Parts: sequence; structure tokens; C-alpha cells
Amino acid sequence: MSQDGGCYTWIWTCFFEYSTPKILLIRSRKVGAINRFIQAVIIGYVIGYVCVLKKGYQETDTVLSSVTTKVKGIALTNTTAMGLRVWDVADYVIPPQEESSFFVMTNMIITPGQNQSHCPEIPSATANCSSDGDCMAGFSDTRGNGVQTGRCVNYSASAKTCEVLAWCPLEEDVDPPEPPILAAAENFTVLIKNHIRYPKFNFSRRNILPHINSTYLTNCVFSRTTDPDCPIFRLRDIVSEAQEDFQDMAVNGGVMGIQIRWDCDLDMPESWCVPKYTFRRLDNKDPENTVAPGYSFRFAKYYSDGEVETRTLIKAFGIRFDVMVFGKAGKFNIVPMLLNVGAGLALMGLVTVVCDWIVLTFMKKKNIYKEQKYSYVDDFELLSEEIP
Amino acid sequence: MSQDGGCYTWIWTCFFEYSTPKILLIRSRKVGAINRFIQAVIIGYVIGYVCVLKKGYQETDTVLSSVTTKVKGIALTNTTAMGLRVWDVADYVIPPQEESSFFVMTNMIITPGQNQSHCPEIPSATANCSSDGDCMAGFSDTRGNGVQTGRCVNYSASAKTCEVLAWCPLEEDVDPPEPPILAAAENFTVLIKNHIRYPKFNFSRRNILPHINSTYLTNCVFSRTTDPDCPIFRLRDIVSEAQEDFQDMAVNGGVMGIQIRWDCDLDMPESWCVPKYTFRRLDNKDPENTVAPGYSFRFAKYYSDGEVETRTLIKAFGIRFDVMVFGKAGKFNIVPMLLNVGAGLALMGLVTVVCDWIVLTFMKKKNIYKEQKYSYVDDFELLSEEIP
Amino acid sequence: MSQDGGCYTWIWTCFFEYSTPKILLIRSRKVGAINRFIQAVIIGYVIGYVCVLKKGYQETDTVLSSVTTKVKGIALTNTTAMGLRVWDVADYVIPPQEESSFFVMTNMIITPGQNQSHCPEIPSATANCSSDGDCMAGFSDTRGNGVQTGRCVNYSASAKTCEVLAWCPLEEDVDPPEPPILAAAENFTVLIKNHIRYPKFNFSRRNILPHINSTYLTNCVFSRTTDPDCPIFRLRDIVSEAQEDFQDMAVNGGVMGIQIRWDCDLDMPESWCVPKYTFRRLDNKDPENTVAPGYSFRFAKYYSDGEVETRTLIKAFGIRFDVMVFGKAGKFNIVPMLLNVGAGLALMGLVTVVCDWIVLTFMKKKNIYKEQKYSYVDDFELLSEEIP
Repeated sequence: MSQDGGCYTWIWTCFFEYSTPKILLIRSRKVGAINRFIQAVIIGYVIGYVCVLKKGYQETDTVLSSVTTKVKGIALTNTTAMGLRVWDVADYVIPPQEESSFFVMTNMIITPGQNQSHCPEIPSATANCSSDGDCMAGFSDTRGNGVQTGRCVNYSASAKTCEVLAWCPLEEDVDPPEPPILAAAENFTVLIKNHIRYPKFNFSRRNILPHINSTYLTNCVFSRTTDPDCPIFRLRDIVSEAQEDFQDMAVNGGVMGIQIRWDCDLDMPESWCVPKYTFRRLDNKDPENTVAPGYSFRFAKYYSDGEVETRTLIKAFGIRFDVMVFGKAGKFNIVPMLLNVGAGLALMGLVTVVCDWIVLTFMKKKNIYKEQKYSYVDDFELLSEEIP
Repeated sequence: MSQDGGCYTWIWTCFFEYSTPKILLIRSRKVGAINRFIQAVIIGYVIGYVCVLKKGYQETDTVLSSVTTKVKGIALTNTTAMGLRVWDVADYVIPPQEESSFFVMTNMIITPGQNQSHCPEIPSATANCSSDGDCMAGFSDTRGNGVQTGRCVNYSASAKTCEVLAWCPLEEDVDPPEPPILAAAENFTVLIKNHIRYPKFNFSRRNILPHINSTYLTNCVFSRTTDPDCPIFRLRDIVSEAQEDFQDMAVNGGVMGIQIRWDCDLDMPESWCVPKYTFRRLDNKDPENTVAPGYSFRFAKYYSDGEVETRTLIKAFGIRFDVMVFGKAGKFNIVPMLLNVGAGLALMGLVTVVCDWIVLTFMKKKNIYKEQKYSYVDDFELLSEEIP
Repeated sequence: MSQDGGCYTWIWTCFFEYSTPKILLIRSRKVGAINRFIQAVIIGYVIGYVCVLKKGYQETDTVLSSVTTKVKGIALTNTTAMGLRVWDVADYVIPPQEESSFFVMTNMIITPGQNQSHCPEIPSATANCSSDGDCMAGFSDTRGNGVQTGRCVNYSASAKTCEVLAWCPLEEDVDPPEPPILAAAENFTVLIKNHIRYPKFNFSRRNILPHINSTYLTNCVFSRTTDPDCPIFRLRDIVSEAQEDFQDMAVNGGVMGIQIRWDCDLDMPESWCVPKYTFRRLDNKDPENTVAPGYSFRFAKYYSDGEVETRTLIKAFGIRFDVMVFGKAGKFNIVPMLLNVGAGLALMGLVTVVCDWIVLTFMKKKNIYKEQKYSYVDDFELLSEEIP
């Protein structure tokens, strides 16, 4: 191409050259139809599925979220231990604020007036004894309540257990009360404020949508059919949407997931980007393969009369609500689009492979096509010369 | 190609065959220039945009993060209710530790000496009454403070409300004090320790960078211009960087986002991977479409003299600082690179499509080109034979 | 192609046309072998690496997780300040419940009986004084404990410091006790319940695997070799797996990461999707470039005798365990698969480029190939006519 000229000429010639493949056009209904059909499938796939359904032309980002919650409600209980008592939010939300979850106490075992002293351990395999020899001073069972003193004392008229140094009196090892003490918690409401952000697109949004005014907010309660945008939820509704019974769940406690999904197509109007709420139970109801069913923890209120420190131990059963925010925003971007278009074009190369195979194998005139399509240069007789 | 030999020969021949398309070279300035221009655009896009700007040759991973915070500062208040009082970190950070956020109380409504008893409800639509008949024993309003006893009592000289069983005296329904009680909180500082990890690349890093020594850390305060690497932040600076006024925000509380972005190119030196701090207000300032503006919650300190349990109810207004860590690490990987190169090559196929269309439609010698480029095999006369 | 017929005929002809490139077949061992070798490499890469190793045919989703924890254990301490004392979970887990982390106190500095009064500040550069003139009424150092009253008083026999209004007596500025007070915390156990969900695939799973029964759960302790599925962890084991010493870490506290990785191939049986536990220390042990080494915070228990509020300030050192759940689920999906196949096919185009270059440059018979492969249409003599 270039031996007969200088280097400059060669580059010049080469630069202004355009190479296009030589094409054999076969005018045949059968092959033509197959060809067009496969082309249509691939174009349909690329446009219909990748572009329209999967939005392959979009760059995506995952959500950054901030959640605040505010529970409201009053419960009245009447127990022998405490008499008539009213519970408000400062009593039953523990701790008073968390980052993206909140706990509502629904049931409890209260052990008031504990102080550091000696008392018989709760009967168990390691605590039962018949004489001091069965107890080991200083031993503490991980599942026990205190450190053994080495003495064997009467737990009840019929049972003897090892004495322990502990917060005495010990919490009784009983099942949680049924019905739950704070059964009224089902009517509590929670206001969930959620602010999300897609940092890649510099896009922020709140779950209190712009069209909602404060009058509506003071009165509404979320309902999937009538008030799907209200960010105030009645606890019973949350639990029952997850196909659970609040009163059942309240006895042993549990974990509920409040899932807020923000799937936003930022090529569309901003007002289309709204949260979708769904609710799921996250802990295992099935008592077969679980320990410590439900959700509970112990905390104490400490008192002091200046001399002796006493505490009220509360084993709190309740429902922890985890607010889980997730979602994906997509926005048109040239890179993923060309990536998908490029891959689609490459798939078009398959058309030729498939059609050639049909034409050259099954058609009556295949030998004519072959003759026209292929030219041969045979090099086998030159093999010895080729190898240096 | 193979009927004339055995199967072995056929495979042999086929294996050592190389098929290359036959090419028509057109030497024309116009077409050549168009051809080269489109090629240059595509190569430029693939190399410049995909590879250099978007780092399409990199595999990415998202960040795993752990945050600890430590607030410091002392505030002096002088209120009629409490007299002269000093507040330290154990008083105003509630709860004392959280996973990746911290709350600093800036304002409060304190109701000391509450105990379970009867008192008139705060006036409201459901609580106002003129006689006992307006009150319903056992009724409790979700937005109320207790459970009605059924009696209508004097709230003040002029107003009567239903009596409730509740923690009495009730918290007064007033706006938070202005200026905020703990206005001095603006000078508090917080040390944020952040440890991140990209599990896919087994890469860890801390926001206390290797070149920082402990002497510097004991004295520095973050400043975007002079101390951009110092992990100690003055609360006022955080709020003012988000274009907000600390004293305004402190009255009703709010939520601030401390965003730490770790965008790391792991093909570069490790020391280039540094955190970027930005600050945003996350709650809605606009009082139009919101309820419970700002950020507040109630908690109580419980006391007992052995007989009666009393509590001090505190409605705490304050700023919750959410530390949000995000980012993406990229590292060279052959799969995304070849994916992008492949898609780029496929786009090169577009060159031929465009140039062929120009050459065969607009050029004067288009018929010569057509003659050279295409050969025809016409099959239409055979249609009747083809269809079986 | 169409000037000689009506529009309908033209579309008809065009629709049933199939264009296939004309091919030059070169039968040469050398070129054929190179050709097949490059093809094999690309096919091997696409199938072996992209499809088998990287599972390029799968759509992926990241994990949504919910964690609950329950610590168990008893510790006995014998200090001069408090005498013999037993600590249970309500004493050492602060706050009593968190979302996906838990804190176990291992060491502490207790300052009982604090009330709001005047006392000399702890000696420091800003607090030391020789006369009242060195102190400024109303001044409070961010690192101090109170607000100066302006008087200079005796701190000890030898030192004078500014008097402050504060919670007095002040916490002594001492190093944490060594050995740690709650050294027995190493034997505490924690039950971690983890529920995960891949929302895109509607797939949920728990870390208490289906084959585990409750009898096993009451007795097992995690061990990488013998009990890798047990979700109950001894704290000492967690720390020692991270190559740290529990007793060392307990003195100043620290942050441990409990990483649970859920990498699930949802094309495989569900039972293959199991959590993998790993443990890492997340805070910086190195005292060189850090402040406030370890992990500690202050909290207070408030008491009141009706008149004066006193508090017990506790500087709690301990280990915060952050449960970090991450992972990726993959499931067959047609889009990423065709994307990768498309890119692979496009790479096949490289074969022709490389082989052509070899054939037309290095082979002896290159001129014969060139002659066969290329046809030329020369347009340079027409240049003047072309430009309008």
C-alpha cells in the first residue's frame, strides 16, 4: 500500500482511506424473514427490556437516610404490685431516643427493692443442693443470678439451693404476664420523620410530602387505602399489616421492621418519588429452633437513701421497631446507556452467525451462496516454506 | 468444505482455517475524514470519559463504617426553677452513648416532683368540660397526658377540664424557652473517630490520619481552611457550615447530618484516601407542612423515698448529630475493564453503519461503490420451490 | 436498489434481503492456530472468569439486616469504695438496648455523692493559680469540669487552683484501674440474633439456622472449629480471634467489630446461604496518633432526698461491640448475562484485527492475501468534483 511513496504520502493515503466490508446480498424470503425476525428480537430486547423495564440507561445511587420517631399514648394498668398506674412515653420508651429504631415496652416483670445481699439462688441444675458441700464459694454460673457463697440454704419449704451474693430478692423465674400489662400499647401512635438523600445526584426528600399540611398531620393516621401518605402509624396497624396479632406479640415482645422504600426515577417529575411503607416481623415466632423467644432486656432504676443503694429491676418485654430505609435512584447517564447499547450492537453480530449457519447448511442453493460468500487462499502446500 | 474427506480431515482443515472479511477500500478525502472523525469520537469517549473520568476499569465496593464520638464542654445556667447550675456531658448527652449519632440537649422544659395522682388535664378540645357529664371515666386521648377519672374540675380560675389520673403535676403546654437554656452548647466540641473498611479489597483506614500526632489532636479544632484534617468539631461550626444559626436551632432542636465521604482510588497511593466532611440540616425547618418541628423527646429521672415514686420529667430539645459515612472505593479489575472495552469496540461497529449510509446515499460515485461492495444472489424466482 | 420500482416493491425487496459479509478463507496452519488460540482465550475468559468465577450472569442485591443481642454473665468485684459487689447485665450494659451494637462495661472510675457546689479545679495549665487575679469568674475551659468563680483556693497542701462551680467533688484525673474492675467480663456470653433480607429477591434468612434446635442453643458456645453455627459468643473468644488480649483491652476499653458476612448464591440451594463470622478490632491501639485511647464515656445516676439532687458519676470504660452485617446475593438474570455475553462477542472482533495484522505484515504470501482481501476504489482524482 505504501512501498512506492514516502512516509508522508503513506500516512496521508492511509488517513483518507475508508474500509467497508464487501457484502453478499441474498434476496430470499425465508432467509430475509429469519434475519429480520432475529434482528427484531434483539432490538426489542435492548429497547423494551433493558431500556424501558430495567432502565439500563440510568446511573444508580443508593439511599442515605436519617430517621426520627416520636411515640404518643397513655396506658393505665392495675396490678397488685403497683396498684393503679398510668404509663406515658417517658416510662415505656427505652432508651428515650435512638437513631433509627424505637422500643415500646408492652409487658414486664418488675422486681422492686433489690439490694446487694445474700439470698438462695433460683432452682436449677447447677444451683440445687442438699448440703454446703454441693456449693462452691466464688462460683458463678453464666445463666445464674449471683456468685455462690458456698452455703446451701432453704429456697422454699421443699427445695434447697446454693446461697448467692446478688441483687436480692432475685427476679422470679416466671413467664411474662398474660395478657400483657401494657396491652393498651396497641393504640399508641408513632410519627416517623424520614429524610433521605441521594448524594450522587444531590437529591433530597422527606417522607412528609410537600402537599401535606400541618392540620392534616395533627389528625391523620396511616391507612394503606385512605391515608397512604400519612407518616403517623398506629402500632396495632403496623403489626396487623405484617399478619401478626398485637396482643400475642406483646406478651413476649418481638422485632418489627418498618420498611420504607424510596425507588425514584429522577428523570421523572420529583413528585413521583414517594416512599412506600411495608411492615414485616423480623424475629422468629417459631419456638422450635430459637432461644429467648421474643424480645426482652433488663434494666434498672437505681435509688439511694444515702446509705444503701437499692434498685428496681425491670425485665422489659416489648416490640422494637426498626425503621429500615432502602431504595435506589436512577438518572439518565451516558455511560451505562452506551454500555447497554454497545452490548446490544454486539448481540446483533449473532444475527449473522445464526443466519449464515441456516443459509449455508439448510438452503437448497447453499453451494451457490458458499461460492459467492467465500474465496479461498490455500496455504497448506507452502507449509515447509513458511516455517523459518 | 468437507464432503470429500473423512471426519478427521474435515476438523483438521476447519481448525486451521482463518476467515477474514473481504474489504472494499475507498480512498476518498471526504469519506475518509468522516470515518476517522467518528472513530476518534468513539475512542475518545471510551478512553477519556469511561476510563479516565468514570474509572470504568475499576471494580467498586461500598464502605463499612464504625463511629465513636466524645463530646466535651461545660454550660452554666441560671433559671428560677433550678438556680445556678452547671451542666456537664453526663447531664446533656442522652443516651450516654449511641452507635453512630449523638444527641446534645440545648433546651428543656423541666417538670419536677411528678407522682401518680389526680390533676386537671391541660385544656384542649377533648379535655375542656363544664360538668362531670362531659368527662368519661377510663377515656384517654392519644395526645393527652392521662386517663380521665370522669370528674370535671377547675384547671384555673376561668377554665374547667376533666380530671385525669397521671404523673401530676402535668407538664405545662408551653413553647420552649427562648433563648435556649443551654445556649452555651455552641462552644461544645466533639471528637469523632471513624474507622472504615472496604471488605472486598481488605482495606481499612481511620479518619485520624497517620501524619497527625497526639499533641496536635489535643489542641486542634476543625476548620475547612486551616485544619481540614482535625477530627474535633465545634458544634457551632457544624451548624453554621450548614447555613443555619445555632441559637435558632437550639430552641426547638433539630437533626444535623455530619457526612463523611470516603472516595478512594485504591490504584493511587493510600495517603490520597482521606475523608471529606460536609454538614447538612436534615429536619424540616419550614413550619408549613410539618408537625412537632425540631427534635425533642421526653425522659424522666426516677426517685423514690421508699414509699412514693416521684420523677422529674424532662422534655429535652436538642440537636441530634447523625454521622453518615459513605463512599466508594475503586480498584483496577479486568472484568469491568473488558466489559467497557468490549462495549466500546461494539460501538466502533457504528462507524461502518454511518459511513456506509453516507457513501451509498450522498456520494456522486455511489453506484460504483455499490457495485463494488455488493454482490447479489437473487432467490425470488425460486420461491415456489423453497416452501415445502 | 430501488429506483426501478414503486415504494412498496422497494420495502418488500429490502425486507426480504439478507446481507452477509463476503469472507476470505485462508487455510494456513500458522494463521489458523493463532486465530483459534486467541478465540480460545477470549471464550475461556468469558466463560471461565466472568461466568464461573465472577458470576457475571447474576443480578446482585445488598443485604438489609436487623440485629438483637442479649448479654449474660455475673461479675463479682471487691473494691475499697464499694466493698463486695455483684454486677449483672442491668448494671454493665449501657444503654440497656441498642440497634445493632452493645456496650459491656469492663472498667470504671466512680465518683459518688456529687452535688452542685464549689470546689477547686483539677490542676492543669488553665486552672493553676497563685492568687484570685489568675482566675476569671465565668470562664469555663472546654476540657475543664466547671465554671470558675474567680477565687483561687487550695487544691492540696502544695497546689492552688481556681475554684469552680461544678458537680463536686470532681472526678479525679487518674488512669483507669489496672487490672480492670470487671475483669470477669471475659466470660460473659452474648447471643446475637440476626435476620437478613434481600428485598430484590424477596429472600429472608436468620443466623439461627433451621437445623439448630433449642436444646443445642441453650448449651453451645461459638467455636470456629467445633461450633461454627452457634450464635452465642464468649466475649474473650471474640477479642482473642481478633488477635487482641481481653484483659489489656478491658482497661481502657475499645471497639470490636463483629462482622457477619452473608454471601448467598440464590441459584444454589437455600441451605448453602450461611453467615460467616469474623472479628476485628476497630479502634486504634497505637497511642502515637490518637487522643482518648480506647472507648469510654461518662454517665450518671441521679438521686434526690427531696431537697438536694446528688449523682454518682461513672466514667465507664468498656468494649463496644458493633455488629456489622454485609454481603451480596446473586441470582441469574438475563440482563447482566447478555451484557457480559455481548461484551465478550465484541471482544471476538479483536481476533480479526490481530490476525489480519499478522497475516498482512509477516506472512510470505502477504501480497496474495492483500490482493484477495482488498478491492480498491480510488477517488483522489475526483477530489475537485466532489467538493461542491
